[in-house]
Amino acid sequence: MNAWVFGDDVDTDAIAPGRYLKFDIGEIARHSMETLDPDFSSRVRKGDIVVAGRNFGAGSSREQAPAALKHLGISALVAESFAGLFYRNALNLGLPAVACAEVKKIRAGDRVRVDAERGRIENLTTGETLACETIPAHLMQMVRDGGLLAHLEKRLARAP
Amino acid sequence: MNAWVFGDDVDTDAIAPGRYLKFDIGEIARHSMETLDPDFSSRVRKGDIVVAGRNFGAGSSREQAPAALKHLGISALVAESFAGLFYRNALNLGLPAVACAEVKKIRAGDRVRVDAERGRIENLTTGETLACETIPAHLMQMVRDGGLLAHLEKRLARAP
Repeated sequence: MNAWVFGDDVDTDAIAPGRYLKFDIGEIARHSMETLDPDFSSRVRKGDIVVAGRNFGAGSSREQAPAALKHLGISALVAESFAGLFYRNALNLGLPAVACAEVKKIRAGDRVRVDAERGRIENLTTGETLACETIPAHLMQMVRDGGLLAHLEKRLARAP
Repeated sequence: MNAWVFGDDVDTDAIAPGRYLKFDIGEIARHSMETLDPDFSSRVRKGDIVVAGRNFGAGSSREQAPAALKHLGISALVAESFAGLFYRNALNLGLPAVACAEVKKIRAGDRVRVDAERGRIENLTTGETLACETIPAHLMQMVRDGGLLAHLEKRLARAP
């Protein structure tokens, strides 16, 4: 649950570089964020959090952007704001994204725990609790099911 | 297709005021935006466009916010940026929302035509064409079908 901190306007071409889109998600993920931090994909650990400023995920609506971060084991995204299409894709793929006005209180390497349903982020390194946007329970259920498709499959399987 | 122009950080409580949420969508819609423009709901016409600045739809994720604008006949939302949950709800209800960096080139009452699939907005009053975010074709199909539920019903009805 270590925080990887980026700035404003990180676009989908930084998250999933265009010249690797023809390869599989493992290869795309290996190059994720490399223009901003060449060590990111090799050092990130399962459960880590990506933290960013305004307009995270701007640019093209390529689904490989949230898919690459999920593939690397990122457990949540926290940003001052998100581009709408990226936000939509992230949740549909089962990757929670929460808007947080106080995002600058998280520094690179801080250990953080995100509770999107309660709308709060604990910074275990500084001891602070930050308020963030609340994701409604029904949407978090979709996220926990692994995204929209897995959620619909589960619900349709249960239908009479 | 007249533009109704609002500022930054218009929240869902302005769009669908909390004290009317217990009533039906018609009553909620009658009070939409009244704290910002008391004439909005009585003067807006079918096909009109809502234009706003940053972070449109911030605050609670109440679905009544995009539903009220749709009920009033609003055909598209154009903003510098949207709150993620509001953006998601709007598209799921069949109301297209497009991010546009040049939104300040649209003035109240301008006649505008939004082409979300091509990523452009024509301001028929000034003759300018503005670039906006492109909504992918598969997502616009969902919007045109009337939103996520209608889209899924149509697709499931077609399934073997």
